[in-house]
Amino acid sequence: MKSFSPLFDELQRSLQVLPGVGPRSAQRMALNLIERTPSEASKLATVLAQALRDISHCHTCYVLSESETCQICADPKRDAHRLMVVESPGQLMAFERAGLHDGHYFVLNGLISPLDGISPDQVRIPQLLKRVGDGVTEVVLALTSSVEGEATAHYIKAQCPGVTLTRLARGIPMGGDIESLDPNTLELALGARESWS
Amino acid sequence: MKSFSPLFDELQRSLQVLPGVGPRSAQRMALNLIERTPSEASKLATVLAQALRDISHCHTCYVLSESETCQICADPKRDAHRLMVVESPGQLMAFERAGLHDGHYFVLNGLISPLDGISPDQVRIPQLLKRVGDGVTEVVLALTSSVEGEATAHYIKAQCPGVTLTRLARGIPMGGDIESLDPNTLELALGARESWS
Ligand SMILES: [Zn+2]
Ligand SMILES: [Zn+2]
Repeated sequence: MKSFSPLFDELQRSLQVLPGVGPRSAQRMALNLIERTPSEASKLATVLAQALRDISHCHTCYVLSESETCQICADPKRDAHRLMVVESPGQLMAFERAGLHDGHYFVLNGLISPLDGISPDQVRIPQLLKRVGDGVTEVVLALTSSVEGEATAHYIKAQCPGVTLTRLARGIPMGGDIESLDPNTLELALGARESWS
Repeated sequence: MKSFSPLFDELQRSLQVLPGVGPRSAQRMALNLIERTPSEASKLATVLAQALRDISHCHTCYVLSESETCQICADPKRDAHRLMVVESPGQLMAFERAGLHDGHYFVLNGLISPLDGISPDQVRIPQLLKRVGDGVTEVVLALTSSVEGEATAHYIKAQCPGVTLTRLARGIPMGGDIESLDPNTLELALGARESWS
C-alpha cells in the first residue's frame, strides 16, 4: 500500500502495541483519534506519558501506584491483618470489582516456576515474607490453579508457620460449561466432590 | 470499585476514547502498556502527540498529511488527470490497499445532505471544482450508494460539464460502507464503472 503520510503510518504501527489490536483496527483508531476526537486523543497522549513516568509500585503491596503507598494500603477501614496474595494487578482488580475482600493485598510478580528458571526471589517472595511478618494473621492464597500455582503455594506455606493459610476452593466455575472444561479441572472437581444430603 | 491509583484510573478512562474499547479492554490495555510494554507505550504517547500536532490535510487532495502535499499527490508516476473522489480518508485507504487506482484522489469532507443541512460548501465541493478545473479530464465518483451519495454525485455532475464523469458500478450494496468492502468487490465495481453523461 502506497502511503500518503509516513507519520500516520507510524501512528498506526504504534497503536498495534495495544493487546488485541491489528492493522485494520489500528487504522480505524488512528483515523478516529486524528479526525474525530483530537482533544480526547491529546489528553490520552498526555495521561499515558504521565502514567509511564509516575506510576511505579506500592512499597507495601506492589500494586501499581503513583504514590509510595497505594490507596488500598492507605485506607484505615481495611484490615491489614488479613492478606490476600495474588499474582498480578489484574487479579487484584478482579477481586476489588467483586468487592469480596476488605483486607490488604500482596501482588506477586508472577509465579515460581523451577522449569522456567523462575525462582522465589524473582516473584517477590522475600518481600511477601517480610510483609507477612509485619502482623499478618491470615493469608489467603488466590493463585492460578496450575503446576506453578501449586509450587508457589507450597513454597509460601513452608515459609509461613504459625499463620492461618487458606487458598481458593477449586472446582467447576459458577455457570461454567462442563462440556468445555479441561480434563484436569473435571478430575479435580470430581475428586473433591462434596457430600450433599 | 475502590481505586488503588487515581492515575491508573485516568489512563483507563482515557483509553476508552478509542473506538470499540470499553472499560474492561481499557483496563487490560492500561495494564499491558505500563507493566509489559512501557517503552512501546512511551513511543505511542510521543507519536500520538506528534501526529496530533503535525498532521493536517494535503492542500491538493485533502487527505491527512503532515506536509502541504501528500505523498500520493507528490508522486510523479501517478496520473494527475484522473481524479477519484471519495468521501473520507478511510475510503481512499481502501482503494490504495487494493492498488486499483493510479490517478489522484480528492477527499470530500462527507456528503451533501440537504435534510441534515449539510451544504456543498461544507464538504469541500468548491475546492473539488477548483481541483477539477486544474487539468482533470476524468472524474471517478466513488461515493457511498445512498440518498446523500446520489445528491452529491448529481451536484458534482451539474458543475462539471466537459469532463468525463464515471461512477462506481452498482455492485455496491445500498448503504454499504465502502471502507470495509473487500478488494474484489471494489475491483469489480471499479472495472464496470458506468459512463455517466
Ligand atoms: Zn499497596
Ligand atoms: Zn494529496
